[in-house]
Amino acid sequence: MNRLTTLLGTRWPLIQAPMAGVQDAGLAIAAGAAGALGSLPCAMLAPDALQRELQRLAEAGRPYNVNFFCHTPPEPDAAREAAWRAALAPYYAEIGQDVNAVPAGAGRLPFSAAAADVLEPFKPRVVSFHFGLPSPALLARVKAWGAVVLSSATTVDEARWLEAQGVDAVIAQGLEAGGHRGHFLDHDLTLQTGTFALLPQTKAAVRVPVIAAGGIADAAGVRAAMALGADGVQVGTAYLCSDEATTSALHRATLQSEAARHTQLTTLFTGRPARGIPNRVMRELGALQNAAPEFPLATAAIAPLRAHWEKQGKGDFSPLWSGQNTRGCRSTPAAAITAALAEGFA
Amino acid sequence: MNRLTTLLGTRWPLIQAPMAGVQDAGLAIAAGAAGALGSLPCAMLAPDALQRELQRLAEAGRPYNVNFFCHTPPEPDAAREAAWRAALAPYYAEIGQDVNAVPAGAGRLPFSAAAADVLEPFKPRVVSFHFGLPSPALLARVKAWGAVVLSSATTVDEARWLEAQGVDAVIAQGLEAGGHRGHFLDHDLTLQTGTFALLPQTKAAVRVPVIAAGGIADAAGVRAAMALGADGVQVGTAYLCSDEATTSALHRATLQSEAARHTQLTTLFTGRPARGIPNRVMRELGALQNAAPEFPLATAAIAPLRAHWEKQGKGDFSPLWSGQNTRGCRSTPAAAITAALAEGFA
Repeated sequence: MNRLTTLLGTRWPLIQAPMAGVQDAGLAIAAGAAGALGSLPCAMLAPDALQRELQRLAEAGRPYNVNFFCHTPPEPDAAREAAWRAALAPYYAEIGQDVNAVPAGAGRLPFSAAAADVLEPFKPRVVSFHFGLPSPALLARVKAWGAVVLSSATTVDEARWLEAQGVDAVIAQGLEAGGHRGHFLDHDLTLQTGTFALLPQTKAAVRVPVIAAGGIADAAGVRAAMALGADGVQVGTAYLCSDEATTSALHRATLQSEAARHTQLTTLFTGRPARGIPNRVMRELGALQNAAPEFPLATAAIAPLRAHWEKQGKGDFSPLWSGQNTRGCRSTPAAAITAALAEGFA
Repeated sequence: MNRLTTLLGTRWPLIQAPMAGVQDAGLAIAAGAAGALGSLPCAMLAPDALQRELQRLAEAGRPYNVNFFCHTPPEPDAAREAAWRAALAPYYAEIGQDVNAVPAGAGRLPFSAAAADVLEPFKPRVVSFHFGLPSPALLARVKAWGAVVLSSATTVDEARWLEAQGVDAVIAQGLEAGGHRGHFLDHDLTLQTGTFALLPQTKAAVRVPVIAAGGIADAAGVRAAMALGADGVQVGTAYLCSDEATTSALHRATLQSEAARHTQLTTLFTGRPARGIPNRVMRELGALQNAAPEFPLATAAIAPLRAHWEKQGKGDFSPLWSGQNTRGCRSTPAAAITAALAEGFA
């Protein structure tokens, strides 16, 4: 259809966005069968789980995308961790648990040689990254398999940087997008812009294809992105309530409620700003909480609170990731969501 | 062309956004002659100046829009004013002036019976408001002339509220827009969303026409907004460098530089969040400065600093209003900018 479908090997220039924690290969396979590029979020998969999911994708026989974070793991900061645990202590007291009994943990692993070892026999058609790119040596290894490499840009400067490093296409992630912001050159959130501003400016700045992300929920959104010069689109939120997503019942209900009109960037759940629907912990501690340890170290201490309350059916401590536009969140097979989006290319 | 052009009486469903401080009737007349609805920003016009500008617009013989703020003037807060002047004192010392010699002032007047008295003989076709609507009695008076009434909504709730109060169309102001944010029901800035999210959700929530604003810089942007369901568009930033705008030379130069890639919401210049290009005072005091008195009282004490430095050719204390997308900022007649935008309706 265009130079992006040629790169991706798909019918439509449409990527089902990788969404760690709310999907596995099942959603990627369903979206792929309907003509999109299905994506597997790999940041939370141990090597054996990654191997198993790749096997499922390989058996489906279609091109797919594997997505990795590529942050530099931070040095643990004992003072900040202590401040963070002190902030959470009242919530632990409320459920009769001890915050200091919770082990610190890595939370999310960046792309690594070990992950590349697991990937290599599968030679995935597309490998996408968030938070920049891995080391030049690791990137070269991925490219040596012939993989198409994508990464997210939240500013024109990031798009130019990614193009200079050799990505095959840039994902322009507008401020409307749900989940983790992909910024990596500068952490000043005021640099980040809406899709209406980011997409045309990015398109004018780079020669590689530009994939629009953020706020695209339906065929009209696809048409609008293409009118602004996109070579294709990446859509996440609209797939969150699909039958194949593993999104929890309470997350689904919140996405389909009036509460989803309001989203906020929050560092509470991982340490990096990510967009989700406000809940109790975001309201009480402040969504952009500076005490939260650096990404991904914030994940460890909040996880038991999440687990406790989810058992009671409450999302008070859960990341309720969502983009700013939930109009596409339908409880239906991913194939139907894909087909509805694809009407925007007609 | 559509139900919005029928309302506005124009060739195109395109409004040249009212921009106080950088334009007078000249820009409105030029945009109007090219088929858009020209707008006169009235918030900074005393009755005699308003009368004079209306006379110019009337002589041009085309429909036009007059725009007013409709905030409730705040009670002066001596402690906050003192804190604000203390924050500015070092800058006054730097230029050898005394901050306490500066008189407090109203800054911007809301729409009033006195303004309505001046307007009434002219019966402007369109009257638009920012920060909500005037009192029901004043609104009824405007509507009794047969004026079409518009106001800005930054959330779906605001759009519904405006429709319930009887506006003829809603301007959906996405977060990309330059100048003052129009929010009025809730001051939580995280409620505000990008145009890609706000526009389709607003369109689905109200029956009156919806005018898209924020990030629309060229024909592609117009096409995208219309694809998302807009009945028309309002464009400001793209007119800032037009020949007829009164934008200062340093503001024009900044808009056409790489510096314009970065904009921030700031309360420093008026007390309400407005989007502009960062400059010295925004960087040094923090753009969202809580010490700044409530709108519009912040304007008085910063004005002499602006005047001093502008004489030296520096915008260090000037509001360099800008939307997030400056790709449309060309030094050319407003007619050419209007014609280029109108290609998006073809």
